[in-house]
Amino acid sequence: MGKKGSLMSVRSDVRVFDATIRDGGLVNDFKFDDDFVKDLYNANVAAGVDYMEFGYKADKDIFDRSDFGKWKFCEEDDIREIVGDNDTDLKISVMADVGRTNLKRDIVPKSESVIDMVRVASYINTIPAAIEMAEYCHKLGYETSVNIMAISNANESDLKQAMELIAQSNVNCAYIVDSYGSVYPERMREIADTYLEGMEECGKLVGIHAHNNQQLAFANTIEALSRGVSYLDATVSSLGRGAGNCPMELLLAFLQNPKYNLPPLLKFIEKHIPLLKEEGTVWGYDIQYLLTGRFNQHPRQAIEFTKNGRKDYSRFYSELLDKE
Amino acid sequence: MGKKGSLMSVRSDVRVFDATIRDGGLVNDFKFDDDFVKDLYNANVAAGVDYMEFGYKADKDIFDRSDFGKWKFCEEDDIREIVGDNDTDLKISVMADVGRTNLKRDIVPKSESVIDMVRVASYINTIPAAIEMAEYCHKLGYETSVNIMAISNANESDLKQAMELIAQSNVNCAYIVDSYGSVYPERMREIADTYLEGMEECGKLVGIHAHNNQQLAFANTIEALSRGVSYLDATVSSLGRGAGNCPMELLLAFLQNPKYNLPPLLKFIEKHIPLLKEEGTVWGYDIQYLLTGRFNQHPRQAIEFTKNGRKDYSRFYSELLDKE
Repeated sequence: MGKKGSLMSVRSDVRVFDATIRDGGLVNDFKFDDDFVKDLYNANVAAGVDYMEFGYKADKDIFDRSDFGKWKFCEEDDIREIVGDNDTDLKISVMADVGRTNLKRDIVPKSESVIDMVRVASYINTIPAAIEMAEYCHKLGYETSVNIMAISNANESDLKQAMELIAQSNVNCAYIVDSYGSVYPERMREIADTYLEGMEECGKLVGIHAHNNQQLAFANTIEALSRGVSYLDATVSSLGRGAGNCPMELLLAFLQNPKYNLPPLLKFIEKHIPLLKEEGTVWGYDIQYLLTGRFNQHPRQAIEFTKNGRKDYSRFYSELLDKE
Repeated sequence: MGKKGSLMSVRSDVRVFDATIRDGGLVNDFKFDDDFVKDLYNANVAAGVDYMEFGYKADKDIFDRSDFGKWKFCEEDDIREIVGDNDTDLKISVMADVGRTNLKRDIVPKSESVIDMVRVASYINTIPAAIEMAEYCHKLGYETSVNIMAISNANESDLKQAMELIAQSNVNCAYIVDSYGSVYPERMREIADTYLEGMEECGKLVGIHAHNNQQLAFANTIEALSRGVSYLDATVSSLGRGAGNCPMELLLAFLQNPKYNLPPLLKFIEKHIPLLKEEGTVWGYDIQYLLTGRFNQHPRQAIEFTKNGRKDYSRFYSELLDKE
């Protein structure tokens, strides 16, 4: 694989994908005010963002409606209350987790829906189930992706097999998901090349969703882009689980395509992000996340450390080592 | 140029360089307690850090002694009060700015000094003066480097000439300094290659000092490392001017050489960094720094914005555009 484009060029395959509500929902149990979501929608439209993900299509038999805000479930009417018929260029996405979704009950045909894309989140060992879910959505008329989480734990032969399965399917896009924020740019370029080799021949695109445990989410995103990755996930002010994601403001400032426009998002940030922090919502890079990222572990212990207001990083380091 | 080493290998040319007091001093006018500096020195020794920079050798005819803490001037006795005769493997450095230093008055021969290295900070257009200063220190017995600031503003032919001049000198190391935090990894690899091509034949080493305006300081540091750069600047918790620097904790966690040891630095951070923040010292990534970095401007306006407690990022964006 070679480099695609340069720091000066515009690539028409690029799609900027806002995952703020969906990944940020993992921090506050999806309890966003309508005002927040509506303002973000308007900011994304004005900023030229290509996709906005509203949340999950979670199964209400598994998750109690009263424990979560509405974006855990993304009902058609709730989305329409924000976007109307979405008469804009911004496409709307929802995420469906393998094993936690009842698509046959909860998804209507695309012709009746304001949703454009369904992204199926899967670990490498449940790819066949993920493809089945994506095929179901494809038949209903949706764009689809399969998002392979915890990519830092996938071995190369499994990953190549996953690429073959996706290549034979109707899935539109295969996503790299660095859930643990473990991957260094040098390795990220290799992973991107493996995906691109698997997808290019069949005309499918590749996406990246990075986490910021080691302050590498933006770097990994633009390095993957430079190899040929097209779908670029980001969240406003990094809002997302644990250390958060690639900051949308860095990504939009970087991209050369004049369709992207930073000021509407800066205005959104000014209005909403300080409030969210004052209310006690905590996310973003800190040493506990660096450590779980470096040790290639799920961030759950670091999230617990954060919730408990702990700052004894050196003890946490020992705790992680004990577990290894 | 090719890649040097891999994510698994140990490179014997690597030197981890702590610039916390020197670059952090630009945030608090070098007003660190002795306790802070002494604990950092001990933590660096225990962590296996290779160099620690104590501050500047600034000219007291230009800067008023009473406006700054002692690390603006780094007198021999002040350093010795922290390190004694420095009977450790940690080497001690000071920085000398072109045009702001009186070396002939303020530096003693190496045989009488506890300092090991003098780094000369220069813009690309004052390289001849920088080399003259470094030669003077070399004659006195010190290791030396020339650190080219604002590298994002240097054009390639000037940079090649600078490399030729340094190659012909007794300077030990040529430093890439991304003062504005403007450089993307793709470009940083090219800059590193230009330096390495210039230095390799004459057996000199290359260093990198990155700023974190676009959350790229760590990524740029390890990408430069992967090309063959040896001296790696970092600061504890990113402490440094504006958006700060490459975080030492990320760098030490990354490096494979078992001589490097993270826990002593985590203990230092626990003890000192929250206090420093409570006292009102402000540094680190924020949107105003992203914007000056992206526009390839000195961070001074963003520092002013921060000092004034402003959060109106979108207005600041317009102000920067007006200036362009």
